[in-house]
Amino acid sequence: MKQFKVGILGATGAVGQKFINLLQGHPWFTIAALGASERSAGKTYAEAANWIEAVELPEDVAAMTVTDCSPASMKGVDFVFSGLDASVATELEGDLARAGIPVISNAKNYRTHKHVPLLVPEVNADHTAMINAQDFDPSGKGFIVTNPNCVAVPLVMALKPLMDAYGIEAIAVTSLQSVSGAGYPGVPSLDIMGNVIPFIGGEEPKIASEPMKLLGSLSDDHTVTEAKFPIDATATRVPTIEGHLLTVKAKFTKRPGSADEIKQVLRSWKHPLTGLNLPSSPKNALKVYDDERFPQPRKNAYNENGMQVGVGRVRMLEFFDAGFVALGHNTCRGAAGVAILNAELLVHQGFIK
Amino acid sequence: MKQFKVGILGATGAVGQKFINLLQGHPWFTIAALGASERSAGKTYAEAANWIEAVELPEDVAAMTVTDCSPASMKGVDFVFSGLDASVATELEGDLARAGIPVISNAKNYRTHKHVPLLVPEVNADHTAMINAQDFDPSGKGFIVTNPNCVAVPLVMALKPLMDAYGIEAIAVTSLQSVSGAGYPGVPSLDIMGNVIPFIGGEEPKIASEPMKLLGSLSDDHTVTEAKFPIDATATRVPTIEGHLLTVKAKFTKRPGSADEIKQVLRSWKHPLTGLNLPSSPKNALKVYDDERFPQPRKNAYNENGMQVGVGRVRMLEFFDAGFVALGHNTCRGAAGVAILNAELLVHQGFIK
Amino acid sequence: MKQFKVGILGATGAVGQKFINLLQGHPWFTIAALGASERSAGKTYAEAANWIEAVELPEDVAAMTVTDCSPASMKGVDFVFSGLDASVATELEGDLARAGIPVISNAKNYRTHKHVPLLVPEVNADHTAMINAQDFDPSGKGFIVTNPNCVAVPLVMALKPLMDAYGIEAIAVTSLQSVSGAGYPGVPSLDIMGNVIPFIGGEEPKIASEPMKLLGSLSDDHTVTEAKFPIDATATRVPTIEGHLLTVKAKFTKRPGSADEIKQVLRSWKHPLTGLNLPSSPKNALKVYDDERFPQPRKNAYNENGMQVGVGRVRMLEFFDAGFVALGHNTCRGAAGVAILNAELLVHQGFIK
Amino acid sequence: MKQFKVGILGATGAVGQKFINLLQGHPWFTIAALGASERSAGKTYAEAANWIEAVELPEDVAAMTVTDCSPASMKGVDFVFSGLDASVATELEGDLARAGIPVISNAKNYRTHKHVPLLVPEVNADHTAMINAQDFDPSGKGFIVTNPNCVAVPLVMALKPLMDAYGIEAIAVTSLQSVSGAGYPGVPSLDIMGNVIPFIGGEEPKIASEPMKLLGSLSDDHTVTEAKFPIDATATRVPTIEGHLLTVKAKFTKRPGSADEIKQVLRSWKHPLTGLNLPSSPKNALKVYDDERFPQPRKNAYNENGMQVGVGRVRMLEFFDAGFVALGHNTCRGAAGVAILNAELLVHQGFIK
Repeated sequence: MKQFKVGILGATGAVGQKFINLLQGHPWFTIAALGASERSAGKTYAEAANWIEAVELPEDVAAMTVTDCSPASMKGVDFVFSGLDASVATELEGDLARAGIPVISNAKNYRTHKHVPLLVPEVNADHTAMINAQDFDPSGKGFIVTNPNCVAVPLVMALKPLMDAYGIEAIAVTSLQSVSGAGYPGVPSLDIMGNVIPFIGGEEPKIASEPMKLLGSLSDDHTVTEAKFPIDATATRVPTIEGHLLTVKAKFTKRPGSADEIKQVLRSWKHPLTGLNLPSSPKNALKVYDDERFPQPRKNAYNENGMQVGVGRVRMLEFFDAGFVALGHNTCRGAAGVAILNAELLVHQGFIK
Repeated sequence: MKQFKVGILGATGAVGQKFINLLQGHPWFTIAALGASERSAGKTYAEAANWIEAVELPEDVAAMTVTDCSPASMKGVDFVFSGLDASVATELEGDLARAGIPVISNAKNYRTHKHVPLLVPEVNADHTAMINAQDFDPSGKGFIVTNPNCVAVPLVMALKPLMDAYGIEAIAVTSLQSVSGAGYPGVPSLDIMGNVIPFIGGEEPKIASEPMKLLGSLSDDHTVTEAKFPIDATATRVPTIEGHLLTVKAKFTKRPGSADEIKQVLRSWKHPLTGLNLPSSPKNALKVYDDERFPQPRKNAYNENGMQVGVGRVRMLEFFDAGFVALGHNTCRGAAGVAILNAELLVHQGFIK
Repeated sequence: MKQFKVGILGATGAVGQKFINLLQGHPWFTIAALGASERSAGKTYAEAANWIEAVELPEDVAAMTVTDCSPASMKGVDFVFSGLDASVATELEGDLARAGIPVISNAKNYRTHKHVPLLVPEVNADHTAMINAQDFDPSGKGFIVTNPNCVAVPLVMALKPLMDAYGIEAIAVTSLQSVSGAGYPGVPSLDIMGNVIPFIGGEEPKIASEPMKLLGSLSDDHTVTEAKFPIDATATRVPTIEGHLLTVKAKFTKRPGSADEIKQVLRSWKHPLTGLNLPSSPKNALKVYDDERFPQPRKNAYNENGMQVGVGRVRMLEFFDAGFVALGHNTCRGAAGVAILNAELLVHQGFIK
Repeated sequence: MKQFKVGILGATGAVGQKFINLLQGHPWFTIAALGASERSAGKTYAEAANWIEAVELPEDVAAMTVTDCSPASMKGVDFVFSGLDASVATELEGDLARAGIPVISNAKNYRTHKHVPLLVPEVNADHTAMINAQDFDPSGKGFIVTNPNCVAVPLVMALKPLMDAYGIEAIAVTSLQSVSGAGYPGVPSLDIMGNVIPFIGGEEPKIASEPMKLLGSLSDDHTVTEAKFPIDATATRVPTIEGHLLTVKAKFTKRPGSADEIKQVLRSWKHPLTGLNLPSSPKNALKVYDDERFPQPRKNAYNENGMQVGVGRVRMLEFFDAGFVALGHNTCRGAAGVAILNAELLVHQGFIK
């Protein structure tokens, strides 16, 4: 297997640190460049970053010199992961793509771009064909692929098999999101300890819109015809560290026969990664719990290196057809982890070579 | 004003302790008897109870002798508050009512009884007329009045003015409930710290059914014709101490014109306690927040001695008509506090004299 | 009783907000001016401040216009409370004192000044005589009085009666400090939830040195001869909201006879405020707990409006003579509350008139 | 390498679950028997246990049938790990040893027994010679070895190299202990969330006494001459999940030259496991942090599978000679993990074969 050299943009930030953490020991990808702001460039990573991950900073990464995020600084890498802040991502990611470097981004800037895939491999692996219509780099080498918001990821993973089986008319969702979703320093402890904040700026519109693109269907012209159903969302912040829990209620085109039938649909989901053995692909992408006390963020979000989505409390409802809860690790499955899985898919499909 | 002697049943438990706490300095009611299990009877309250309230145990209460909960032990009181466990409440509360002692109960046992009011004074003060049909005590002196589940209280307080203005077709609700709702010792810290438990046994059916009785209309025969709309509920436990937060989505018979219009309806609510100046009645029973970060359990649940319900994030939705969050202090407004308010209403109405 | 108009410097910060909160309903002091940075000046307080207190912002304060902290802006007040940041306190507080305005400060800048009292009224009320030697304002009207660090306050309150009874040779102390001690936004939730940080910058030297001045004795020349004994301190941050808990071990000149004897010494403490009935003076400044599970930050820090210090776990030791834990509310007793008590003492003594 | 069949006593309890968790994939030891109370015997482990570990219950363990803890039920195993409750450990562990089965116990019952080693391999590996004087089983096959209290483990690991270098005169220690130390259900969330409890029953005497045996020296007659210095301890419970943090102050026979010198002593510690490559032996048993914000329970307790002890904040003091903080994972390094390491040492030394 070819070894790929990867750069990380926004390497000192919370998402960048998670990329570094998750790439330790990766069989295909080796960290070759760490890009951050001008202020950090020239320092060692240990000097530049306030390491907040709960594992030790790897010594070799600690000793690497941080650069800026320009094409010149990234020219030795095969592709980059981007954990850039939205305020700079449009320009910096675009520059890299135009310079022929594939950009696998967690930033929101290009998610709604007509030719940029918004990708969760198990859900819409075929959407990578959109890359063919991108014009960042006429040679076709440079392109941009994005992953969705950290709530959208577990939501669409649970909804995709149900949509295929029953059709979706409407969704109501309340998210109970952990503090790591706000980055660092993020949420002040005085605001959230022993408390709930019933609002997260900008979150609910993303929860409503991104699934439409993710669950949409690819057309021959490399564009996506979006799904069309309402998602009424309430996003709250709760005092958990990692793992976003969603309470979901769904109205289907065809009412399922029973909760057991729904569980069976979820458990027998055949998705595009089945059998591919990508390094970051969990053995079981969607675990269904029978014990109604689960899934729980602190106990289950880390399952399969934080890449498994948990579904529990599947039950029939009265106004809606059915309800369930879904859990996804927000910084792994919902951010850096899904981006790495996206890159693995792109290698598998030949877009990155 | 006449002074009333009150007994507290289940006085050593979590709800009993809250009764004791809230009755300190009450202008009408004086604690005259503390009833608990046989095991505690004969001890001083300080010996019998593991005091868990965050204020000091009052010295005069500490020195009182605990009795059992029999009519004989309670015979000197004008009425009792019951914080009894469901396993014993049916018999003990019934015995007291039959012995001519009014029982104002937080237990669930008689909530669904055809002639027992399930009462939140601001919502259905007229339901106390059901007492007239009770046959516990032929003399009419002994009777039972109950308050609903701690989630149902803030829910119906927010829904009542909206039902009157728009009619309700369907409700979806997710509750984020604090650990004090589970009593003491209640939820193990290992289960809930930094975590969410997506299930609370027996809670969702109560959230769905109790509002139907509360929002029902009184008939001439002293029974209630229940409201009829589905409430699809998900009850979760979060690491907060006191205060249950609900995310609510509502489908109305008539779509409101705007979020501002809904806020205006909530703010101008005229309820049956308006102007009565009952001691535990908050000046503002329903506070509407414009700042979308509020209400929050730790910062707002204690407003007006924990008797005010907060409503925030009022907004129009797509599938539902509107959404909002509601906050109520679960052990005050949702348990001991509403029971005390119920007793005050019954004094005002002449049922307790 | 004369009513005093007070100004608050740093009114929008965490300490300033606590001053506003604690002064609500104060029988002697009325808020007449709110000083903050240039950035806030001219705005209403509601606009300028991100209110973080757990009670509602009083409406009259919300509507007040914020000014800067200059003598000109404060000229209508009788004295000021200062919650200024250390970076600006030296100049701004000095300017006000020179302009004839008494400054009661929580900032650290003048705590070590030779003629500025570092004051905890129960401990060293006589130190206010140091004011007579101050030369900020030749007319004698303007002066500065400071209160100590939030750990030093409960520490000296517990040590003062013990020092008088036994003499102190050495102290070892570990503080478990709440997040409110770091102001706002203060400690990121990602750093402290479910965690302990075993270091607080600059804290240990203050814990070691400030008690020496507080427990020192006033000389005829209005200076203080400091106490002289080592305090080996470890300051840690723990996930509590309000209330600093100290574990203290003491070596005395004379070994106490027993833990009961020590408790008796603490309980029978006669301090200078005894009998004065100052508005913010707790009835019992030092509560001694027999139940070894107490005092606890969440349950006991708020006793007597956060002005009571709790002492528990008094016991004899082997290497040290005795050990105990002490609890003080860091933002009340350890900051804004003690400053208000200082002002009350100064009114009583005639320094403020 | 020979494969050993192991039994776990108290397998459904918190320590038993940690044994199961840590033994997954162990290269030498395979779980062959799960012993619990009569009530659990006969059920599958999945039925009998309320699994609380944050990883999934292994499927093969879930399907095993639980037995009682009698010699008959354990007769097929090479040795047992005991996580038994103290109320039953004396009898059950003694019976097994008498029946010829080595017992590696985390229970406290035999820790003070004259011929039973209290063992932390890095500190006193030679104490296993005490086994030779045991008379549980005349054949010498059955014996008992214990590990100390979860606070004593990191304490003696930090103190051992310092004692060897400087001699110890006296120690003051305050422990900040996590809730997992109290087992399950353990500490009620209402008691500990946002709070500190300044007392843990029975803990301080163990912290004072167990290090004396651990740091004592083996005599020719297979008994231990205990170390002799006072440890004045305060044990507190804080809202952390796993990891006990200790603040330690030490008076030495010979004052160290500097904090750097102390760090050097700790970093260059040569202990008896150095070079043995036991499966559970951490590469670095004692990590010394230069960054004064570390070690922290949530971020560092899990280092090297929870088997590394962290030391930080090393500094010279005034009354004491030096201070530091030490962190150990209480249920791994301080309980099940050290017991497994003890068993590995006993295999290496030939006591288990």
